[in-house]
Amino acid sequence: MTRVLILNGPNLNLLGTRQPEVYGTTTLSDIETMCREHAPVAEITFVQSNHEGALIDAIHAAKTAQDGIILNAGAYTHTSVALHDAIASVELPCVEVHLSNIHAREPFRHHSYIAPVAVGQIAGFGAQSYLLALDALLAHVKGSK
Amino acid sequence: MTRVLILNGPNLNLLGTRQPEVYGTTTLSDIETMCREHAPVAEITFVQSNHEGALIDAIHAAKTAQDGIILNAGAYTHTSVALHDAIASVELPCVEVHLSNIHAREPFRHHSYIAPVAVGQIAGFGAQSYLLALDALLAHVKGSK
Amino acid sequence: MTRVLILNGPNLNLLGTRQPEVYGTTTLSDIETMCREHAPVAEITFVQSNHEGALIDAIHAAKTAQDGIILNAGAYTHTSVALHDAIASVELPCVEVHLSNIHAREPFRHHSYIAPVAVGQIAGFGAQSYLLALDALLAHVKGSK
Amino acid sequence: MTRVLILNGPNLNLLGTRQPEVYGTTTLSDIETMCREHAPVAEITFVQSNHEGALIDAIHAAKTAQDGIILNAGAYTHTSVALHDAIASVELPCVEVHLSNIHAREPFRHHSYIAPVAVGQIAGFGAQSYLLALDALLAHVKGSK
Amino acid sequence: MTRVLILNGPNLNLLGTRQPEVYGTTTLSDIETMCREHAPVAEITFVQSNHEGALIDAIHAAKTAQDGIILNAGAYTHTSVALHDAIASVELPCVEVHLSNIHAREPFRHHSYIAPVAVGQIAGFGAQSYLLALDALLAHVKGSK
Amino acid sequence: MTRVLILNGPNLNLLGTRQPEVYGTTTLSDIETMCREHAPVAEITFVQSNHEGALIDAIHAAKTAQDGIILNAGAYTHTSVALHDAIASVELPCVEVHLSNIHAREPFRHHSYIAPVAVGQIAGFGAQSYLLALDALLAHVKGSK
Amino acid sequence: MTRVLILNGPNLNLLGTRQPEVYGTTTLSDIETMCREHAPVAEITFVQSNHEGALIDAIHAAKTAQDGIILNAGAYTHTSVALHDAIASVELPCVEVHLSNIHAREPFRHHSYIAPVAVGQIAGFGAQSYLLALDALLAHVKGSK
Amino acid sequence: MTRVLILNGPNLNLLGTRQPEVYGTTTLSDIETMCREHAPVAEITFVQSNHEGALIDAIHAAKTAQDGIILNAGAYTHTSVALHDAIASVELPCVEVHLSNIHAREPFRHHSYIAPVAVGQIAGFGAQSYLLALDALLAHVKGSK
Amino acid sequence: MTRVLILNGPNLNLLGTRQPEVYGTTTLSDIETMCREHAPVAEITFVQSNHEGALIDAIHAAKTAQDGIILNAGAYTHTSVALHDAIASVELPCVEVHLSNIHAREPFRHHSYIAPVAVGQIAGFGAQSYLLALDALLAHVKGSK
Amino acid sequence: MTRVLILNGPNLNLLGTRQPEVYGTTTLSDIETMCREHAPVAEITFVQSNHEGALIDAIHAAKTAQDGIILNAGAYTHTSVALHDAIASVELPCVEVHLSNIHAREPFRHHSYIAPVAVGQIAGFGAQSYLLALDALLAHVKGSK
Amino acid sequence: MTRVLILNGPNLNLLGTRQPEVYGTTTLSDIETMCREHAPVAEITFVQSNHEGALIDAIHAAKTAQDGIILNAGAYTHTSVALHDAIASVELPCVEVHLSNIHAREPFRHHSYIAPVAVGQIAGFGAQSYLLALDALLAHVKGSK
Amino acid sequence: MTRVLILNGPNLNLLGTRQPEVYGTTTLSDIETMCREHAPVAEITFVQSNHEGALIDAIHAAKTAQDGIILNAGAYTHTSVALHDAIASVELPCVEVHLSNIHAREPFRHHSYIAPVAVGQIAGFGAQSYLLALDALLAHVKGSK
Repeated sequence: MTRVLILNGPNLNLLGTRQPEVYGTTTLSDIETMCREHAPVAEITFVQSNHEGALIDAIHAAKTAQDGIILNAGAYTHTSVALHDAIASVELPCVEVHLSNIHAREPFRHHSYIAPVAVGQIAGFGAQSYLLALDALLAHVKGSK
Repeated sequence: MTRVLILNGPNLNLLGTRQPEVYGTTTLSDIETMCREHAPVAEITFVQSNHEGALIDAIHAAKTAQDGIILNAGAYTHTSVALHDAIASVELPCVEVHLSNIHAREPFRHHSYIAPVAVGQIAGFGAQSYLLALDALLAHVKGSK
Repeated sequence: MTRVLILNGPNLNLLGTRQPEVYGTTTLSDIETMCREHAPVAEITFVQSNHEGALIDAIHAAKTAQDGIILNAGAYTHTSVALHDAIASVELPCVEVHLSNIHAREPFRHHSYIAPVAVGQIAGFGAQSYLLALDALLAHVKGSK
Repeated sequence: MTRVLILNGPNLNLLGTRQPEVYGTTTLSDIETMCREHAPVAEITFVQSNHEGALIDAIHAAKTAQDGIILNAGAYTHTSVALHDAIASVELPCVEVHLSNIHAREPFRHHSYIAPVAVGQIAGFGAQSYLLALDALLAHVKGSK
Repeated sequence: MTRVLILNGPNLNLLGTRQPEVYGTTTLSDIETMCREHAPVAEITFVQSNHEGALIDAIHAAKTAQDGIILNAGAYTHTSVALHDAIASVELPCVEVHLSNIHAREPFRHHSYIAPVAVGQIAGFGAQSYLLALDALLAHVKGSK
Repeated sequence: MTRVLILNGPNLNLLGTRQPEVYGTTTLSDIETMCREHAPVAEITFVQSNHEGALIDAIHAAKTAQDGIILNAGAYTHTSVALHDAIASVELPCVEVHLSNIHAREPFRHHSYIAPVAVGQIAGFGAQSYLLALDALLAHVKGSK
Repeated sequence: MTRVLILNGPNLNLLGTRQPEVYGTTTLSDIETMCREHAPVAEITFVQSNHEGALIDAIHAAKTAQDGIILNAGAYTHTSVALHDAIASVELPCVEVHLSNIHAREPFRHHSYIAPVAVGQIAGFGAQSYLLALDALLAHVKGSK
Repeated sequence: MTRVLILNGPNLNLLGTRQPEVYGTTTLSDIETMCREHAPVAEITFVQSNHEGALIDAIHAAKTAQDGIILNAGAYTHTSVALHDAIASVELPCVEVHLSNIHAREPFRHHSYIAPVAVGQIAGFGAQSYLLALDALLAHVKGSK
Repeated sequence: MTRVLILNGPNLNLLGTRQPEVYGTTTLSDIETMCREHAPVAEITFVQSNHEGALIDAIHAAKTAQDGIILNAGAYTHTSVALHDAIASVELPCVEVHLSNIHAREPFRHHSYIAPVAVGQIAGFGAQSYLLALDALLAHVKGSK
Repeated sequence: MTRVLILNGPNLNLLGTRQPEVYGTTTLSDIETMCREHAPVAEITFVQSNHEGALIDAIHAAKTAQDGIILNAGAYTHTSVALHDAIASVELPCVEVHLSNIHAREPFRHHSYIAPVAVGQIAGFGAQSYLLALDALLAHVKGSK
Repeated sequence: MTRVLILNGPNLNLLGTRQPEVYGTTTLSDIETMCREHAPVAEITFVQSNHEGALIDAIHAAKTAQDGIILNAGAYTHTSVALHDAIASVELPCVEVHLSNIHAREPFRHHSYIAPVAVGQIAGFGAQSYLLALDALLAHVKGSK
Repeated sequence: MTRVLILNGPNLNLLGTRQPEVYGTTTLSDIETMCREHAPVAEITFVQSNHEGALIDAIHAAKTAQDGIILNAGAYTHTSVALHDAIASVELPCVEVHLSNIHAREPFRHHSYIAPVAVGQIAGFGAQSYLLALDALLAHVKGSK
């Protein structure tokens, strides 16, 4: 089985609880369930933290425990050189994922410090972004074996 | 059946014929075949042109003939306001796709004029980017019905 | 009679067919008719193309066949040095026209490569922009004789 | 009758008195006469001031006394957020007009603070710019009734 | 008693008369009354002008006649080096005040030439901004005695 | 009673202990006391952390427990998109507060990521900034009920 | 006799009255006297205004009444395109003068809109700057006759 | 024999027909003749098009049919990432050529998207630029054999 | 004895464990040992954390417990205004150290928020950078006594 | 007597020998003579060099031998931090002088590295600029005694 | 015979002696020989210096002694306004030459201060660049006679 | 013995002679002595010049005569591409050194053209910077043997 860390950054814990009549009621927990159902062949570790340092610690821990990382760094995507370095350091394939199409939002969300150290980026498809990222990562891991 | 236009921009016709020992031997024709096999429920029109105007014409023609567009605008991604306007005009869901991770390449490839009018963006997974885009578009079309 | 080329760039062919309840039902063909009725003393050639190269060809052809040009370069206004050079090369008076007030839209629409080689610019008055441009061009041609 | 304020900014009072052999002898007073003759159906108030504050006062006074404004803000076009706000505050249709093609001059004349709050812009046709602006404003007022 | 000049810049005279169903009906005169009632211990001079020069003159006059200044420079906040210098010259404590949160509006409203010479800035609380500014200024004057 | 979270960012814990002969001896604890005395009608929760993640956690916790937030994000004001998103997510009125006039300091302190999601900003009045913010927030909460 | 307008912009009226122990006690009136004594052969008109419009009016009036202009536009130096245009319009030799060395102060004082339309610039010599400017202008007028 | 594609971009077809008393009467056809006479050992294919797509097509066709390319991309030099990619794709030595010294013209002509994928650049020598480019390309091809 | 805090930021804990055949096998623990051996006269506290907040806490704790700080802030060097403020607040001499020559790497690593509040910077000498920093700090502390 | 170094930078040795029918025939030697005649009370050392290092050497030599410096650094004005430091190091009053009005020329001539370390700047009055600079420097030296 | 100065800037003296197995063994002396053999009809003066001032002196000396200049200014190309002015001053045709394709290297090598005063630029062809430049210059001198 | 060139740029010859009561009395000669005493095992050549060309010559001469270079390029650090190229050409290890912390000074001193071709940088420790640089260079040379 392929071991995958799905790592979620700041504010993603609020997903689905904010104005459900507008943003829908899909929670991060729902996304976790969807991921597990979508890719039963993957051994998924699903983590969320609002702490940049905790995200770095989790990436470090993945170095030996995982085969790949799906990273939704949230707002840290745009500001964290430290996460950039963390991904580069552990030498695991990383797929960058975003619920919204960050390139269609405010200019300060167009730049990603994660992108230069990621295999690829998937943005804009809501919860489905995660499922696509899982497919992408599993195919990548399989292909590079 | 969902009708999908997969539209490919400049230089993509050379795929697979250039330094195959380096870039692999997957041609654009192979990608077309992979797409048709991956999504038999979709009615796929697969087009490539090096002409910006021809790409605009194809998008216009899709307005009534298609249910969605997968667009790899190639180098025009970074320079064409006209393609931006074309996508905005036909009011079809559009998934932006790139073989390489454009955010990890030269700075002039980081900006996309397509992104603000696309549902989302998938970049960096080679030929698989197209399959992910198909999944994303079909789910989007299904979800918005 | 004054010979006038009215040249229309990318996506203008879709005018009036997109969300008519919002944008109105005036088509580019309607604008052509309005122009002919507004300036019966002018011999009008009315052309549209989505191809930058075709627009350049049309400008070149105007060099000997026309007395002036009304150019709505659409999205190419903001990106085409080649159209700038084409207008400069044929040495005909050119009036730049826009349906919308480009200076009140996204920043990337504020700059015009056509302006430095045009007599003047008219923007923001919808179909009427063309009629004003006709008046402006005819007066200019008359004044410079 | 449509009531129109034609408001002229700094240095426009010198028009026609400066190097007449070069710039022609059309004065601002001549333009006023041309406007009145061109649009006898309009009730025209014609004002010039070199004082930014006086221009703002005039715009405020127009709020109830006029149906629309033609504004040649001269050099204040490029520097005055206050005029921008004044036009936005009185909620009258405003046509921005310039004698010269500001987009073909020094870079600091390419940006207009008036444009985002104007219906449209006409630039580059000398005194005729005013007549075109009158046509545009009268049609706009008529159309929005 | 502490003598306070409350100085209001361009377009603030229109407050409350523009789309009252949207923006409310509080006029600048109402704000003046609120200020006088809020700080009966202050001797308030309340001035508005659309003229940058008149605002400078008023600041100069305050040099000997006032103990502090509350300045809502309106649009001149963003463009007037002259007001910056005027405040610096009279050496009175100045509190910068804005009805709206200028840092949440268009980018050209984010910079303030007043801020570097002001004690502090209060922005975004509508008419209440003035009452907070009065409290701030009175405490500042008291504290620095 | 109105429930208010007063949230303080990095380095604010050192207040009053650093060069007291220069910066004064008012500590953050003193400010807390001043706030409680100033607004006895408010139920104040007073928190400080040097950890960006802990500040985000505290904002999330406020979603149901508080009626409004007073946020002095300290240095994170200028760098944290994550705090911007946190405030936007919890949909509570937020007043941004700073001890110093950030707009009069180094350029990198002029921009605030908090401002676009705050009701307003108060900066430059030392400890009194907090009391003004309390007044502003309480009035805002009262006004919007 | 050579007729010279010495025109002074905003805040210069306060000269000498502000912290005389620091900045000295030379007033603008003293400078006027120094100028008259320094250049008895010149017929000097000495004007100061805080109003940009009044400065423009004074420049216009100089067109026929003066042989040259010495302009200390104060803070308007850095922001006024209108003064730039006014100087350009009257076609009189203009010497730009500044008490302080503007190129050694804040960056926003390094750019001058007056410079491109002035014969030359003298900055940094306090009151003596005016005497040097008089020498420069008189020599220039003499030389160009 | 060395096979060389000499490819000419937009507006170059007008060469020699525009103001011959100013720009001379050398046409693009004359340049073709000069090239053939200058390098009889080369098998020259000489193409001109105003269409970016047609230029890309021609470059692609050269991949197997030519030994090198001389490219005067005209205005597309400054805007076309697609031509950059086309040259990179065909892996033929390319010499960039310009009639005028683009580095001495408007700033928007200083940057070249062709340069990073060209062997070298020759600019400013009129028709002779082509002859120098031929010499350079032939020597390069010979040297790399 | 001089008390020294050697503080290490994000990802430095991975030192020596990543591709040892490339980057060498020196771990952070080895560097700690080297430091202790190099400067037996110093009382060294050696700390590493991936958490920006924890680094700030450690700097605060050093205020009374240490005589100086050697700071390798890692990626936070380039993004953390909060660390800048923390160093400024504790008023201890700080030597900035980097393993690699940050000025020879990506542009986003050229700027340091630590530098303006540090005594000096040592970068590019690998583990030896720490030993040099120790020498520099000890000499600085000795010199300023 | 006041000792003055008049130091001239690159290309000024060619003055008067280049297109005398256009630029006049005043040579640098003529300027030297004019300076000596204009200020017989000054002991003038007049130096020119095209070598940046030689200019620095001359400034260093002036430290003890001169009372002030008049510096026309020519093109080095815009590029030489080393000359900036040299002037700052010798602590002599320096008047910056230019024959042409550098602020009215190409943008790269608008910035001066000399200005921040000069008493003041005189630009645009041809040879007379030197005489004005002598007057300014002598008055400055006299005033500061 | 046409007299030509071939002037070489900093570090070009090391050519051919640095890593000959990588960069080849062609020295600057070899290039000189190649030039003399390539253009026996030219009277060539071949100079190299690492001193900007010496290069300026050499250009000045060429004013009367030479018919044209071939300038490889090396690194000074990108920083020297003084060389720009020197070339402009001597009014000789100048061909700018570079061994490497500067437009394909680091961004700080893309801008040339020589280009605006040169006839044209040849870059990227190694030693052959000089031979092409000789051809270009000789043809230019011949053509302009 | 390791042969080391310690090369000092412009204005460093004045060290210790300028305001000794402020900057101390350590001269460059004192630093030379300190270096020789600090590293008796090194064979030190100590050079200073204000001439950029002389510094380049000295670096070239070091190519065969030295084992490494310590370079304090002074102000040329920020402007000299030529020194960058010189260091790159001689392929000797180079340690960049600065007396002051250049990153804490004016912005134009933050960028170094030396850094990309240096082993590392030491800045801010006064004369001690040189001793640290010697240690660093000697260790580097030893380590790379």
